[in-house]
Amino acid sequence: MADKAQIQEAIKTQGEVVRKLKTEKASKEQIDEEVAKLLELKAQLGGDEGRHQFTLKTAKGTRDYNPKQMAIREKVFNTIISCFKRHGAENIDTPVFELKETLTGKYGEDSKLIYDLKDQGGELLSLRYDLTVPFARYLAMNKVTNIKRYHIAKVYRRDNPAMTRGRYREFYQCDFDIAGQYDPMIPDAECLKIVHEILSELELGDFRIKVNDRRILDGMFAVCGVPDDKFRTICSTVDKLDKMSWEDVRSEMVKEKGLSEEAADQIGQYVSLQGGMDLAERLLQDAKMSQSKQACAGLTDMKQLFSYLQLFQVTDKVVFDLSLARGLDYYTGVIYEAILTQTGPVPVAAAQNGAGEKAEEGVSVGSVAGGGRYDGLVGMFDPKGRKVPCVGVSIGIERVFSIMEQKAEASAEKVRTTETQVMVASAQKNLLEERLRLTAELWNAGIKAEVMYKRNPKLLSQLQHCEDSGIPLVAILGEQELKDGVVKLRTVHSREEIDVSRAELVEEIKRRTSDV
Amino acid sequence: MADKAQIQEAIKTQGEVVRKLKTEKASKEQIDEEVAKLLELKAQLGGDEGRHQFTLKTAKGTRDYNPKQMAIREKVFNTIISCFKRHGAENIDTPVFELKETLTGKYGEDSKLIYDLKDQGGELLSLRYDLTVPFARYLAMNKVTNIKRYHIAKVYRRDNPAMTRGRYREFYQCDFDIAGQYDPMIPDAECLKIVHEILSELELGDFRIKVNDRRILDGMFAVCGVPDDKFRTICSTVDKLDKMSWEDVRSEMVKEKGLSEEAADQIGQYVSLQGGMDLAERLLQDAKMSQSKQACAGLTDMKQLFSYLQLFQVTDKVVFDLSLARGLDYYTGVIYEAILTQTGPVPVAAAQNGAGEKAEEGVSVGSVAGGGRYDGLVGMFDPKGRKVPCVGVSIGIERVFSIMEQKAEASAEKVRTTETQVMVASAQKNLLEERLRLTAELWNAGIKAEVMYKRNPKLLSQLQHCEDSGIPLVAILGEQELKDGVVKLRTVHSREEIDVSRAELVEEIKRRTSDV
Repeated sequence: MADKAQIQEAIKTQGEVVRKLKTEKASKEQIDEEVAKLLELKAQLGGDEGRHQFTLKTAKGTRDYNPKQMAIREKVFNTIISCFKRHGAENIDTPVFELKETLTGKYGEDSKLIYDLKDQGGELLSLRYDLTVPFARYLAMNKVTNIKRYHIAKVYRRDNPAMTRGRYREFYQCDFDIAGQYDPMIPDAECLKIVHEILSELELGDFRIKVNDRRILDGMFAVCGVPDDKFRTICSTVDKLDKMSWEDVRSEMVKEKGLSEEAADQIGQYVSLQGGMDLAERLLQDAKMSQSKQACAGLTDMKQLFSYLQLFQVTDKVVFDLSLARGLDYYTGVIYEAILTQTGPVPVAAAQNGAGEKAEEGVSVGSVAGGGRYDGLVGMFDPKGRKVPCVGVSIGIERVFSIMEQKAEASAEKVRTTETQVMVASAQKNLLEERLRLTAELWNAGIKAEVMYKRNPKLLSQLQHCEDSGIPLVAILGEQELKDGVVKLRTVHSREEIDVSRAELVEEIKRRTSDV
Repeated sequence: MADKAQIQEAIKTQGEVVRKLKTEKASKEQIDEEVAKLLELKAQLGGDEGRHQFTLKTAKGTRDYNPKQMAIREKVFNTIISCFKRHGAENIDTPVFELKETLTGKYGEDSKLIYDLKDQGGELLSLRYDLTVPFARYLAMNKVTNIKRYHIAKVYRRDNPAMTRGRYREFYQCDFDIAGQYDPMIPDAECLKIVHEILSELELGDFRIKVNDRRILDGMFAVCGVPDDKFRTICSTVDKLDKMSWEDVRSEMVKEKGLSEEAADQIGQYVSLQGGMDLAERLLQDAKMSQSKQACAGLTDMKQLFSYLQLFQVTDKVVFDLSLARGLDYYTGVIYEAILTQTGPVPVAAAQNGAGEKAEEGVSVGSVAGGGRYDGLVGMFDPKGRKVPCVGVSIGIERVFSIMEQKAEASAEKVRTTETQVMVASAQKNLLEERLRLTAELWNAGIKAEVMYKRNPKLLSQLQHCEDSGIPLVAILGEQELKDGVVKLRTVHSREEIDVSRAELVEEIKRRTSDV
């Protein structure tokens, strides 16, 4: 008999044969024959492999959410959705796939990360890569010129997953955007206020929101002597400043991108600047910077933005940072990115990657939100090129999930995965019918109740289930209780028991679980 | 110049050329060249077609949800989720795509409706077709033997959409399932109780829940003389009884499926029977039926089921109906389906199609929920074939959405798409800063507030926005109010205005909108 390694090699080869036949749509008979050979080989290995016809896994870069993860996810979503609703946002949803052409030409070289559907006849389709492009398509298609909306949904990227760091191929985005022609910087300021509220409420530790403006960046490049055709590439090098030293960034600009040393050094002086409204004012007076009309427009708006942020009382966390660049081409004005400055128990960077948009692929280690103004995207979809100015923010929710999960792990407090208020139990036999009757009474009264699906469960196992899943109360039925028209109501944590009349049971349960 | 029809024909042909090149991954230059020709042709047609490079539409069989539809969707989901939680269910989520092999061999001939992803290197993937198979995969993969869970998510079928009737290629399923080895019919009865609760709470009009059992059907076929190999095909003909007359069903059995006339007539006598526990008892005494062990097991369980349903007080809507068959192969015991018996303003059938599972493709006109017991599916995934008995129900939510939307259309009451409690407004100029400051105060106090993004909006347009979007209160600021430290609080519907001190404003708003 061949040795194990040889068999495994043969299995691999045979697996490819089967795979190829399937791809080529070979006849069922032909495929079955080769599959049979494959199973025979696997059987030689012994163990379970021969019997096991399915690969028991989820697709690469994806994961299931178990009930505990879902409980955390629900809590995070509730916080975020409450905030969006507090700001008067409406909610929309779009399909998970779009016509391929809708996505074409929006993501630059990251287009290679788009999942295409197989051509099975009919339209060519792709899974959505973000929520911003479908939003722009929605606005143009429905001729919507004014909307404040949020959209929470999964997006898809054929990226190299780093799941331990919260990077997946299927992941959530939580987007809030304001579309419409308004007076400058008011919606932009609201987006930053929202980031401030959400990050504060999620209690992820201290954070900072960096702000810059595409026009300031472009103006700066112009006055520093960067040739027009090098703006984008130099911008993406600047974008690395939170991960690389200035020396390395400078070297990349000069050696790889062919920028003059003089220009690089001038950029270096600007991108080290951080401040608030004062910095914007100073740069407006700057001999060089003030030569750029674009930069002046951006700086004037930045001053305005900070004045609104003062009214909103969020300037403690916001910093005007000339090194913030962000990847996406479609930004036209203010851009921002929030980072956690103390990540507590979190070990590694978890920013979603893809030289793309908003929070998910924020370059910064610890980036948890991001966005900016994109006044041209809707016009790309409108038949007449009509523009709808937009500004928005995306919460980097997968990283938030990771942090919350780790916090839950570290905490002594148990995460409940159900909201059950009471378990209907019995210590005696033959009371299934009575248990079911009472349970239905409670359900009908809106009480969250469980009952064991056994004719005669042991009291201990019923109590154990309460301990395990955090159910606070047990309604115990026995012959005596039935005779007296009462229920023994037990508080799980204190083990205290009192008799409550059937008529008063619902109210008593509500009273005792009013915080659930 | 060629006439319009000729140009349109040429555009069509040229469109196919471009499409073909794209499919074949021709070079960018080659594609661009052909696209340019296409645009030239379109330009000849005049109008917007030349400029418009994008097809502004969603993929066939899919739709966007606008804010109004989302508001209705949220309400329906809240009702359903509350019910699931009341019954102690946990929540899980799985990826939107699975390994192709996970879905293979689960849906019979409907497998052709599965969306495959393009092979871009790596695994072969397909979009999920339902939530039941991913659930079974989840249980086997995580070795879960006991769980009560719900899962609400979109599934995908390359079916012929009939969107006006609520049939889509992307649609929601709301599944509740109980997995585990328990005493007979207790979880099954809870599933029916859940259907009863949800349909009652959604106020969709009167309904009926039909119940049958696969074992009773199979036993019936056996004693009526249906050959073993014809069980499935005869079963699917019986399944048409709610859309076809008995004569037509009989004719299909005899002429198309080659069943003897005698067997068909015997089946005809059984499938016309409807009843409750009494019918189950009668059939247990039936000379012919009682010859089948399988049928007797099913009938005994049916009696047991009805005894639990009596305790749950839902027998008014449940009927044991021997003509209920349901499509899916994987059912092994009790099956059920809920139908609306008075659909109010709803015009046409809207059952999701696909000879498949649960509610979505219920055969019945007006089917809104369905499900059954499937004790073998998890074992198909387990390496050692270990079985996990399961029973579940799926709410046919798309049809429910359609009905709710039509009800909303017909009703005079406006659907609110935001929850905003108060609009911060001003009648005077130059009060933007004061408006923003007050708005932030309200946000920080948890009040849902909006403010117009204009320096000097007209009071009328601010009030109009409140009328349009149903905002109940307006907090009006003016020079005098600022001097007095008050806000003029206006109730939109009554136009009544009172002065409220800034200190008491938050409490006053909460008091007046406590039902929001």
